[in-house]
Amino acid sequence: MSTSIDTQASDLPVNIGYIVYPGFQALDVFGPLDPLNMLSMEVPLNLSIIGPTLEPVSTKAPLVAPTVSPDFGQSIVPTHTFASPPKDLDVLIVPGGAGSAYPLELQQAQIDFVKEQYPKLKYLISVCTGASLLARAGVLDGKRATTTKAGWAWTTSTGPNVNWVPKARWVVDGNIWTTSGVAAGIDGIFAWISHVYGEERSLKIANTIELERHTDPSYDPFAEIWNVPTSVAAQAPAGQSA
Amino acid sequence: MSTSIDTQASDLPVNIGYIVYPGFQALDVFGPLDPLNMLSMEVPLNLSIIGPTLEPVSTKAPLVAPTVSPDFGQSIVPTHTFASPPKDLDVLIVPGGAGSAYPLELQQAQIDFVKEQYPKLKYLISVCTGASLLARAGVLDGKRATTTKAGWAWTTSTGPNVNWVPKARWVVDGNIWTTSGVAAGIDGIFAWISHVYGEERSLKIANTIELERHTDPSYDPFAEIWNVPTSVAAQAPAGQSA
Repeated sequence: MSTSIDTQASDLPVNIGYIVYPGFQALDVFGPLDPLNMLSMEVPLNLSIIGPTLEPVSTKAPLVAPTVSPDFGQSIVPTHTFASPPKDLDVLIVPGGAGSAYPLELQQAQIDFVKEQYPKLKYLISVCTGASLLARAGVLDGKRATTTKAGWAWTTSTGPNVNWVPKARWVVDGNIWTTSGVAAGIDGIFAWISHVYGEERSLKIANTIELERHTDPSYDPFAEIWNVPTSVAAQAPAGQSA
Repeated sequence: MSTSIDTQASDLPVNIGYIVYPGFQALDVFGPLDPLNMLSMEVPLNLSIIGPTLEPVSTKAPLVAPTVSPDFGQSIVPTHTFASPPKDLDVLIVPGGAGSAYPLELQQAQIDFVKEQYPKLKYLISVCTGASLLARAGVLDGKRATTTKAGWAWTTSTGPNVNWVPKARWVVDGNIWTTSGVAAGIDGIFAWISHVYGEERSLKIANTIELERHTDPSYDPFAEIWNVPTSVAAQAPAGQSA
Protein backbone atom coordinates (compact mmCIF):
# COMPACT_ATOMS: atom_id res chain seq x y z
CA MET A 1 0.00 0.00 0.00
CA SER A 2 2.37 2.66 -1.25
CA THR A 3 1.91 5.85 -3.13
CA SER A 4 -0.25 4.53 -5.94
CA ILE A 5 -2.96 7.00 -6.72
CA ASP A 6 -5.44 4.13 -6.70
CA THR A 7 -5.14 3.68 -2.96
CA GLN A 8 -6.97 6.95 -2.64
CA ALA A 9 -10.00 5.48 -4.34
CA SER A 10 -11.05 3.32 -1.45
CA ASP A 11 -14.04 1.83 -3.24
CA LEU A 12 -11.85 0.05 -5.76
CA PRO A 13 -11.78 -3.72 -5.34
CA VAL A 14 -8.62 -5.04 -3.70
CA ASN A 15 -9.20 -8.66 -2.65
CA ILE A 16 -9.68 -11.02 -5.59
CA GLY A 17 -10.58 -14.68 -5.09
CA TYR A 18 -10.46 -17.43 -7.71
CA ILE A 19 -12.29 -20.70 -7.20
CA VAL A 20 -10.55 -23.88 -8.39
CA TYR A 21 -11.79 -27.48 -8.39
CA PRO A 22 -10.62 -30.72 -10.06
CA GLY A 23 -11.16 -30.57 -13.79
CA PHE A 24 -11.10 -26.77 -14.09
CA GLN A 25 -10.27 -25.44 -17.57
CA ALA A 26 -6.72 -24.04 -17.57
CA LEU A 27 -7.45 -20.95 -19.66
CA ASP A 28 -10.61 -20.15 -17.65
CA VAL A 29 -8.27 -19.48 -14.75
CA PHE A 30 -5.02 -18.26 -16.27
CA GLY A 31 -6.55 -16.27 -19.14
CA PRO A 32 -8.06 -13.70 -16.75
CA LEU A 33 -5.26 -14.12 -14.18
CA ASP A 34 -2.49 -13.07 -16.56
CA PRO A 35 -3.84 -9.54 -17.11
CA LEU A 36 -4.68 -9.37 -13.40
CA ASN A 37 -1.05 -10.26 -12.65
CA MET A 38 -0.02 -7.34 -14.86
CA LEU A 39 -2.58 -5.04 -13.22
CA SER A 40 -1.28 -5.99 -9.79
CA MET A 41 2.07 -4.38 -10.66
CA GLU A 42 0.36 -1.00 -10.74
CA VAL A 43 -2.69 -1.35 -8.51
CA PRO A 44 -2.71 -2.80 -4.98
CA LEU A 45 -4.39 -6.20 -5.23
CA ASN A 46 -4.48 -9.42 -3.25
CA LEU A 47 -5.17 -12.82 -4.77
CA SER A 48 -6.57 -15.94 -3.12
CA ILE A 49 -6.81 -19.27 -4.90
CA ILE A 50 -9.65 -21.07 -3.14
CA GLY A 51 -10.03 -24.84 -3.50
CA PRO A 52 -11.62 -27.84 -1.80
CA THR A 53 -8.42 -28.40 0.23
CA LEU A 54 -4.93 -26.92 0.20
CA GLU A 55 -3.71 -29.82 -1.96
CA PRO A 56 -2.79 -28.94 -5.55
CA VAL A 57 -5.81 -28.99 -7.87
CA SER A 58 -5.44 -30.45 -11.36
CA THR A 59 -6.99 -29.49 -14.68
CA LYS A 60 -7.40 -33.25 -15.05
CA ALA A 61 -10.77 -34.37 -13.76
CA PRO A 62 -10.21 -37.59 -11.81
CA LEU A 63 -13.60 -39.14 -12.54
CA VAL A 64 -13.57 -38.70 -16.30
CA ALA A 65 -13.53 -41.99 -18.19
CA PRO A 66 -10.05 -43.11 -19.27
CA THR A 67 -8.79 -41.28 -22.31
CA VAL A 68 -5.84 -41.70 -24.61
CA SER A 69 -3.83 -39.36 -22.37
CA PRO A 70 -4.78 -40.28 -18.79
CA ASP A 71 -2.13 -38.16 -17.07
CA PHE A 72 -2.15 -34.98 -19.15
CA GLY A 73 -2.84 -32.09 -16.82
CA GLN A 74 -1.40 -29.31 -14.66
CA SER A 75 -1.89 -28.48 -11.00
CA ILE A 76 -2.32 -25.13 -9.28
CA VAL A 77 -1.77 -24.62 -5.55
CA PRO A 78 -4.67 -23.18 -3.50
CA THR A 79 -3.99 -20.59 -0.84
CA HIS A 80 -7.35 -21.05 0.92
CA THR A 81 -10.21 -23.53 1.16
CA PHE A 82 -13.96 -23.14 0.83
CA ALA A 83 -14.18 -23.93 4.54
CA SER A 84 -11.54 -21.33 5.49
CA PRO A 85 -11.80 -18.61 2.88
CA PRO A 86 -10.08 -15.23 2.98
CA LYS A 87 -11.97 -12.44 4.69
CA ASP A 88 -13.47 -9.55 2.82
CA LEU A 89 -13.36 -10.75 -0.76
CA ASP A 90 -14.28 -7.97 -3.17
CA VAL A 91 -14.26 -10.02 -6.36
CA LEU A 92 -14.91 -13.73 -6.87
CA ILE A 93 -14.06 -15.37 -10.21
CA VAL A 94 -15.51 -18.78 -11.06
CA PRO A 95 -14.00 -20.84 -13.87
CA GLY A 96 -15.62 -23.62 -15.86
CA GLY A 97 -14.23 -26.90 -17.05
CA ALA A 98 -15.15 -30.56 -17.39
CA GLY A 99 -15.25 -30.84 -13.59
CA SER A 100 -18.18 -28.44 -13.37
CA ALA A 101 -20.38 -30.97 -15.18
CA TYR A 102 -19.76 -33.68 -12.60
CA PRO A 103 -22.67 -34.90 -10.46
CA LEU A 104 -24.29 -32.17 -8.41
CA GLU A 105 -23.01 -33.47 -5.07
CA LEU A 106 -19.46 -32.80 -6.26
CA GLN A 107 -20.40 -29.19 -7.05
CA GLN A 108 -22.12 -28.45 -3.77
CA ALA A 109 -19.11 -26.96 -1.96
CA GLN A 110 -18.46 -24.54 -4.83
CA ILE A 111 -22.14 -23.67 -5.17
CA ASP A 112 -22.52 -23.05 -1.43
CA PHE A 113 -19.41 -20.90 -1.48
CA VAL A 114 -20.78 -18.72 -4.30
CA LYS A 115 -24.13 -18.41 -2.48
CA GLU A 116 -22.42 -17.48 0.80
CA GLN A 117 -20.01 -14.97 -0.71
CA TYR A 118 -22.21 -13.21 -3.25
CA PRO A 119 -24.01 -10.83 -0.86
CA LYS A 120 -20.64 -9.52 0.33
CA LEU A 121 -18.97 -9.10 -3.08
CA LYS A 122 -18.46 -6.02 -5.21
CA TYR A 123 -18.23 -8.20 -8.33
CA LEU A 124 -18.95 -11.81 -9.26
CA ILE A 125 -17.42 -13.04 -12.54
CA SER A 126 -17.80 -16.40 -14.28
CA VAL A 127 -16.04 -17.93 -17.24
CA CYS A 128 -17.53 -20.62 -19.51
CA THR A 129 -19.42 -23.36 -17.62
CA GLY A 130 -18.54 -21.58 -14.37
CA ALA A 131 -21.93 -19.94 -14.98
CA SER A 132 -23.54 -23.25 -13.96
CA LEU A 133 -22.18 -22.80 -10.44
CA LEU A 134 -23.64 -19.29 -10.29
CA ALA A 135 -26.96 -20.54 -11.69
CA ARG A 136 -27.16 -23.38 -9.19
CA ALA A 137 -26.36 -20.94 -6.39
CA GLY A 138 -29.45 -19.02 -7.47
CA VAL A 139 -27.65 -15.73 -7.90
CA LEU A 140 -28.50 -15.51 -11.61
CA ASP A 141 -32.25 -15.99 -11.16
CA GLY A 142 -34.09 -13.28 -13.08
CA LYS A 143 -30.81 -11.93 -14.41
CA ARG A 144 -29.29 -11.86 -17.88
CA ALA A 145 -26.24 -14.08 -18.33
CA THR A 146 -24.25 -16.00 -20.91
CA THR A 147 -22.01 -19.06 -20.98
CA THR A 148 -20.12 -21.42 -23.32
CA LYS A 149 -21.69 -21.90 -26.74
CA ALA A 150 -20.12 -25.35 -27.20
CA GLY A 151 -21.81 -26.54 -23.99
CA TRP A 152 -24.86 -24.28 -24.16
CA ALA A 153 -27.64 -26.84 -23.69
CA TRP A 154 -26.25 -28.43 -20.53
CA THR A 155 -25.06 -25.23 -18.89
CA THR A 156 -28.28 -23.30 -19.44
CA SER A 157 -30.25 -26.28 -18.10
CA THR A 158 -28.71 -25.60 -14.69
CA GLY A 159 -30.48 -22.22 -14.56
CA PRO A 160 -34.11 -22.47 -15.72
CA ASN A 161 -34.91 -19.05 -14.24
CA VAL A 162 -32.00 -17.25 -15.86
CA ASN A 163 -32.42 -14.99 -18.90
CA TRP A 164 -29.68 -16.63 -20.95
CA VAL A 165 -28.31 -14.46 -23.77
CA PRO A 166 -27.42 -16.79 -26.64
CA LYS A 167 -25.22 -14.41 -28.61
CA ALA A 168 -22.75 -12.57 -26.41
CA ARG A 169 -19.03 -12.56 -25.68
CA TRP A 170 -19.96 -11.47 -22.17
CA VAL A 171 -23.01 -10.12 -20.32
CA VAL A 172 -23.15 -7.70 -17.40
CA ASP A 173 -26.20 -7.60 -15.15
CA GLY A 174 -25.72 -5.52 -12.04
CA ASN A 175 -22.46 -6.62 -10.46
CA ILE A 176 -22.40 -10.03 -12.13
CA TRP A 177 -20.26 -10.50 -15.22
CA THR A 178 -20.73 -13.79 -17.09
CA THR A 179 -18.52 -14.60 -20.06
CA SER A 180 -18.89 -17.07 -22.90
CA GLY A 181 -16.58 -20.07 -23.45
CA VAL A 182 -12.96 -20.24 -22.22
CA ALA A 183 -11.12 -17.56 -24.26
CA ALA A 184 -14.07 -15.19 -23.85
CA GLY A 185 -12.99 -14.86 -20.23
CA ILE A 186 -9.93 -12.94 -21.39
CA ASP A 187 -12.04 -10.39 -23.25
CA GLY A 188 -14.40 -10.27 -20.28
CA ILE A 189 -11.67 -9.51 -17.77
CA PHE A 190 -10.24 -6.77 -20.00
CA ALA A 191 -13.71 -5.21 -20.26
CA TRP A 192 -13.97 -5.43 -16.48
CA ILE A 193 -10.51 -3.87 -16.00
CA SER A 194 -11.53 -1.04 -18.34
CA HIS A 195 -14.76 -0.58 -16.41
CA VAL A 196 -13.16 -0.55 -12.97
CA TYR A 197 -9.62 0.75 -13.50
CA GLY A 198 -9.95 2.62 -16.79
CA GLU A 199 -9.44 1.90 -20.47
CA GLU A 200 -5.90 3.30 -20.42
CA ARG A 201 -4.65 0.60 -18.03
CA SER A 202 -6.56 -2.07 -19.88
CA LEU A 203 -5.13 -1.12 -23.27
CA LYS A 204 -1.61 -0.87 -21.89
CA ILE A 205 -1.81 -4.41 -20.49
CA ALA A 206 -3.37 -5.75 -23.71
CA ASN A 207 -0.57 -4.21 -25.79
CA THR A 208 2.07 -5.59 -23.45
CA ILE A 209 0.75 -9.13 -23.70
CA GLU A 210 0.06 -8.61 -27.43
CA LEU A 211 -3.62 -9.35 -27.19
CA GLU A 212 -6.11 -7.91 -29.65
CA ARG A 213 -9.17 -7.67 -27.44
CA HIS A 214 -12.74 -8.07 -28.59
CA THR A 215 -14.27 -4.97 -27.02
CA ASP A 216 -17.79 -5.50 -28.36
CA PRO A 217 -19.79 -7.71 -25.96
CA SER A 218 -22.09 -8.77 -28.81
CA TYR A 219 -19.19 -10.23 -30.82
CA ASP A 220 -19.96 -13.93 -30.94
CA PRO A 221 -19.35 -15.99 -34.08
CA PHE A 222 -19.47 -19.11 -31.91
CA ALA A 223 -23.20 -18.89 -31.25
CA GLU A 224 -23.76 -19.70 -34.91
CA ILE A 225 -20.91 -22.21 -35.14
CA TRP A 226 -22.46 -24.19 -32.28
CA ASN A 227 -26.06 -23.71 -33.46
CA VAL A 228 -27.13 -22.09 -30.23
CA PRO A 229 -30.90 -21.65 -30.41
CA THR A 230 -32.07 -18.08 -30.36
CA SER A 231 -34.96 -17.14 -28.08
CA VAL A 232 -36.77 -14.13 -26.68
CA ALA A 233 -33.72 -13.47 -24.57
CA ALA A 234 -31.70 -13.27 -27.76
CA GLN A 235 -33.39 -9.97 -28.55
CA ALA A 236 -31.83 -8.32 -25.55
CA PRO A 237 -28.50 -6.63 -26.26
CA ALA A 238 -25.36 -8.08 -24.72
CA GLY A 239 -23.05 -6.22 -22.39
CA GLN A 240 -23.77 -3.74 -19.66
CA SER A 241 -27.39 -3.53 -18.68
CA ALA A 242 -29.11 -0.25 -18.07
CA MET B 1 -2.34 -45.84 -25.90
CA SER B 2 -5.58 -47.16 -27.28
CA THR B 3 -7.22 -47.29 -30.64
CA SER B 4 -6.63 -43.70 -31.72
CA ILE B 5 -5.67 -43.62 -35.34
CA ASP B 6 -2.82 -41.33 -34.40
CA THR B 7 -0.96 -44.09 -32.62
CA GLN B 8 -0.35 -45.59 -36.05
CA ALA B 9 1.64 -42.54 -37.05
CA SER B 10 4.65 -43.31 -34.92
CA ASP B 11 6.53 -40.18 -35.89
CA LEU B 12 3.99 -37.92 -34.20
CA PRO B 13 5.30 -36.24 -31.06
CA VAL B 14 4.02 -37.80 -27.83
CA ASN B 15 6.11 -36.48 -24.94
CA ILE B 16 5.72 -32.77 -24.31
CA GLY B 17 7.79 -30.92 -21.73
CA TYR B 18 7.19 -27.44 -20.40
CA ILE B 19 9.91 -25.51 -18.59
CA VAL B 20 8.87 -23.39 -15.59
CA TYR B 21 10.94 -21.08 -13.41
CA PRO B 22 10.13 -18.38 -10.82
CA GLY B 23 8.59 -15.35 -12.48
CA PHE B 24 7.22 -17.17 -15.53
CA GLN B 25 4.36 -15.40 -17.32
CA ALA B 26 1.10 -17.25 -16.59
CA LEU B 27 -0.32 -17.03 -20.11
CA ASP B 28 3.00 -18.08 -21.70
CA VAL B 29 2.41 -21.44 -20.02
CA PHE B 30 -1.34 -21.88 -19.82
CA GLY B 31 -2.19 -20.23 -23.14
CA PRO B 32 -0.54 -23.03 -25.15
CA LEU B 33 -1.33 -25.68 -22.51
CA ASP B 34 -5.10 -25.21 -22.70
CA PRO B 35 -5.37 -26.27 -26.37
CA LEU B 36 -2.84 -29.03 -25.68
CA ASN B 37 -5.09 -30.24 -22.85
CA MET B 38 -7.94 -30.39 -25.37
CA LEU B 39 -5.75 -32.14 -27.95
CA SER B 40 -4.74 -34.74 -25.34
CA MET B 41 -8.34 -35.92 -25.18
CA GLU B 42 -8.04 -37.17 -28.76
CA VAL B 43 -4.35 -37.79 -29.31
CA PRO B 44 -2.06 -39.79 -26.97
CA LEU B 45 0.18 -37.25 -25.25
CA ASN B 46 2.25 -37.05 -22.09
CA LEU B 47 3.06 -33.81 -20.29
CA SER B 48 5.98 -33.00 -18.01
CA ILE B 49 6.28 -29.75 -16.11
CA ILE B 50 10.01 -29.30 -15.56
CA GLY B 51 11.27 -26.88 -12.93
CA PRO B 52 14.34 -26.12 -10.80
CA THR B 53 12.98 -28.38 -8.01
CA LEU B 54 9.71 -30.22 -7.37
CA GLU B 55 8.50 -27.32 -5.21
CA PRO B 56 5.64 -25.25 -6.65
CA VAL B 57 6.88 -22.49 -8.96
CA SER B 58 5.22 -19.07 -8.79
CA THR B 59 4.48 -16.51 -11.47
CA LYS B 60 5.74 -14.09 -8.86
CA ALA B 61 9.45 -13.50 -9.28
CA PRO B 62 10.98 -13.46 -5.78
CA LEU B 63 13.79 -11.02 -6.55
CA VAL B 64 11.69 -8.32 -8.14
CA ALA B 65 11.67 -5.09 -6.20
CA PRO B 66 8.67 -4.66 -3.90
CA THR B 67 5.54 -3.64 -5.72
CA VAL B 68 2.13 -2.47 -4.65
CA SER B 69 0.94 -6.11 -4.69
CA PRO B 70 3.82 -8.15 -3.23
CA ASP B 71 1.95 -11.45 -2.95
CA PHE B 72 -0.07 -11.50 -6.15
CA GLY B 73 0.82 -14.69 -8.01
CA GLN B 74 -0.06 -18.32 -8.72
CA SER B 75 1.97 -21.49 -8.38
CA ILE B 76 2.18 -24.52 -10.67
CA VAL B 77 3.51 -27.89 -9.51
CA PRO B 78 6.47 -29.39 -11.46
CA THR B 79 6.52 -33.11 -12.23
CA HIS B 80 10.25 -33.20 -13.01
CA THR B 81 13.42 -31.19 -12.46
CA PHE B 82 16.13 -29.99 -14.82
CA ALA B 83 18.48 -32.42 -13.06
CA SER B 84 16.06 -35.37 -13.42
CA PRO B 85 14.08 -34.71 -16.56
CA PRO B 86 11.72 -37.11 -18.29
CA LYS B 87 13.26 -39.41 -20.86
CA ASP B 88 12.64 -39.02 -24.58
CA LEU B 89 11.07 -35.59 -24.79
CA ASP B 90 9.72 -34.90 -28.27
CA VAL B 91 8.68 -31.30 -27.72
CA LEU B 92 10.06 -28.71 -25.32
CA ILE B 93 8.17 -25.46 -24.72
CA VAL B 94 9.91 -22.52 -23.07
CA PRO B 95 7.87 -19.66 -21.61
CA GLY B 96 8.99 -16.12 -20.94
CA GLY B 97 8.26 -13.83 -18.06
CA ALA B 98 9.93 -11.33 -15.76
CA GLY B 99 12.04 -14.14 -14.32
CA SER B 100 13.79 -14.71 -17.64
CA ALA B 101 15.38 -11.27 -17.39
CA TYR B 102 17.04 -12.00 -14.06
CA PRO B 103 20.85 -12.14 -13.89
CA LEU B 104 22.39 -14.74 -16.18
CA GLU B 105 23.47 -17.07 -13.37
CA LEU B 106 19.80 -17.56 -12.46
CA GLN B 107 19.05 -18.60 -16.06
CA GLN B 108 21.92 -21.06 -16.42
CA ALA B 109 19.98 -24.19 -15.43
CA GLN B 110 17.23 -23.44 -17.96
CA ILE B 111 19.76 -22.51 -20.68
CA ASP B 112 21.79 -25.67 -20.08
CA PHE B 113 18.62 -27.73 -20.19
CA VAL B 114 17.60 -26.27 -23.56
CA LYS B 115 21.12 -26.86 -24.91
CA GLU B 116 21.16 -30.45 -23.64
CA GLN B 117 17.69 -31.35 -24.89
CA TYR B 118 17.62 -29.63 -28.28
CA PRO B 119 19.56 -32.25 -30.28
CA LYS B 120 17.07 -34.92 -29.17
CA LEU B 121 13.86 -32.95 -29.79
CA LYS B 122 11.42 -33.08 -32.65
CA TYR B 123 10.28 -29.52 -31.88
CA LEU B 124 11.48 -26.64 -29.72
CA ILE B 125 8.95 -23.87 -29.07
CA SER B 126 9.36 -20.57 -27.21
CA VAL B 127 6.88 -17.95 -26.09
CA CYS B 128 7.72 -14.26 -25.52
CA THR B 129 11.04 -13.72 -23.69
CA GLY B 130 11.47 -17.50 -23.56
CA ALA B 131 13.38 -16.88 -26.80
CA SER B 132 16.20 -15.40 -24.67
CA LEU B 133 16.81 -18.83 -23.15
CA LEU B 134 16.99 -20.40 -26.61
CA ALA B 135 19.29 -17.61 -27.82
CA ARG B 136 21.60 -17.99 -24.85
CA ALA B 137 21.67 -21.74 -25.40
CA GLY B 138 23.02 -20.98 -28.87
CA VAL B 139 20.33 -22.96 -30.68
CA LEU B 140 19.03 -19.91 -32.54
CA ASP B 141 22.43 -18.87 -33.97
CA GLY B 142 22.08 -18.27 -37.70
CA LYS B 143 18.37 -18.94 -37.51
CA ARG B 144 15.33 -16.71 -37.94
CA ALA B 145 13.32 -16.08 -34.78
CA THR B 146 10.99 -13.63 -33.10
CA THR B 147 10.08 -12.60 -29.57
CA THR B 148 8.09 -10.06 -27.53
CA LYS B 149 7.72 -6.64 -29.10
CA ALA B 150 7.27 -4.90 -25.73
CA GLY B 151 10.64 -6.29 -24.60
CA TRP B 152 12.32 -6.43 -28.01
CA ALA B 153 15.57 -4.58 -27.28
CA TRP B 154 16.57 -6.64 -24.25
CA THR B 155 15.50 -10.01 -25.59
CA THR B 156 17.20 -9.63 -28.96
CA SER B 157 20.37 -8.48 -27.17
CA THR B 158 20.68 -12.00 -25.76
CA GLY B 159 21.16 -13.40 -29.28
CA PRO B 160 23.53 -11.23 -31.36
CA ASN B 161 23.90 -13.99 -33.98
CA VAL B 162 20.17 -14.58 -34.42
CA ASN B 163 18.27 -13.27 -37.45
CA TRP B 164 15.51 -11.61 -35.43
CA VAL B 165 12.30 -10.97 -37.39
CA PRO B 166 10.81 -7.71 -36.05
CA LYS B 167 7.30 -8.12 -37.47
CA ALA B 168 5.91 -11.59 -36.89
CA ARG B 169 3.30 -13.29 -34.73
CA TRP B 170 5.53 -16.37 -34.87
CA VAL B 171 8.51 -17.63 -36.88
CA VAL B 172 9.39 -21.17 -37.86
CA ASP B 173 12.96 -22.08 -38.78
CA GLY B 174 13.54 -25.78 -39.13
CA ASN B 175 12.10 -27.42 -36.02
CA ILE B 176 12.23 -24.28 -33.87
CA TRP B 177 9.05 -22.25 -33.44
CA THR B 178 9.46 -18.87 -31.73
CA THR B 179 6.41 -16.77 -30.97
CA SER B 180 5.98 -13.10 -30.16
CA GLY B 181 4.77 -11.76 -26.80
CA VAL B 182 2.55 -13.73 -24.39
CA ALA B 183 -0.79 -14.13 -26.23
CA ALA B 184 1.07 -14.82 -29.48
CA GLY B 185 1.97 -18.18 -27.96
CA ILE B 186 -1.67 -19.23 -28.28
CA ASP B 187 -1.71 -18.48 -32.00
CA GLY B 188 1.68 -20.18 -32.33
CA ILE B 189 0.55 -23.40 -30.65
CA PHE B 190 -2.57 -23.53 -32.80
CA ALA B 191 -0.40 -23.13 -35.93
CA TRP B 192 1.83 -25.92 -34.61
CA ILE B 193 -1.17 -28.16 -33.89
CA SER B 194 -2.43 -27.53 -37.44
CA HIS B 195 1.01 -28.32 -38.82
CA VAL B 196 1.50 -31.53 -36.86
CA TYR B 197 -2.01 -32.89 -36.23
CA GLY B 198 -4.00 -31.19 -38.99
CA GLU B 199 -6.09 -28.08 -39.39
CA GLU B 200 -9.33 -29.96 -38.63
CA ARG B 201 -8.28 -30.76 -35.06
CA SER B 202 -6.89 -27.28 -34.57
CA LEU B 203 -10.07 -25.57 -35.74
CA LYS B 204 -12.26 -27.86 -33.63
CA ILE B 205 -10.30 -26.99 -30.49
CA ALA B 206 -10.31 -23.27 -31.33
CA ASN B 207 -14.08 -23.31 -31.80
CA THR B 208 -14.58 -25.20 -28.55
CA ILE B 209 -12.57 -22.70 -26.54
CA GLU B 210 -14.10 -19.83 -28.56
CA LEU B 211 -10.81 -18.51 -29.80
CA GLU B 212 -10.53 -16.60 -33.06
CA ARG B 213 -7.01 -17.54 -34.08
CA HIS B 214 -4.62 -15.33 -35.99
CA THR B 215 -3.52 -17.77 -38.70
CA ASP B 216 -1.22 -15.36 -40.54
CA PRO B 217 2.28 -15.46 -39.02
CA SER B 218 2.98 -11.96 -40.35
CA TYR B 219 0.07 -10.46 -38.37
CA ASP B 220 1.75 -8.13 -35.91
CA PRO B 221 0.27 -4.75 -35.04
CA PHE B 222 2.40 -4.75 -31.91
CA ALA B 223 5.69 -4.25 -33.78
CA GLU B 224 4.49 -0.77 -34.69
CA ILE B 225 2.85 -0.10 -31.32
CA TRP B 226 6.17 -0.80 -29.59
CA ASN B 227 8.30 0.95 -32.24
CA VAL B 228 10.34 -2.14 -32.97
CA PRO B 229 13.12 -1.08 -35.34
CA THR B 230 13.01 -2.69 -38.74
CA SER B 231 16.20 -4.09 -40.19
CA VAL B 232 17.50 -6.28 -42.99
CA ALA B 233 15.93 -9.22 -41.20
CA ALA B 234 12.59 -7.40 -41.45
CA GLN B 235 12.58 -8.10 -45.17
CA ALA B 236 12.35 -11.84 -44.61
CA PRO B 237 8.80 -13.16 -44.46
CA ALA B 238 7.50 -14.51 -41.20
CA GLY B 239 6.31 -18.04 -40.68
CA GLN B 240 7.57 -21.31 -42.08
CA SER B 241 10.93 -21.09 -43.80
CA ALA B 242 11.67 -22.90 -47.03
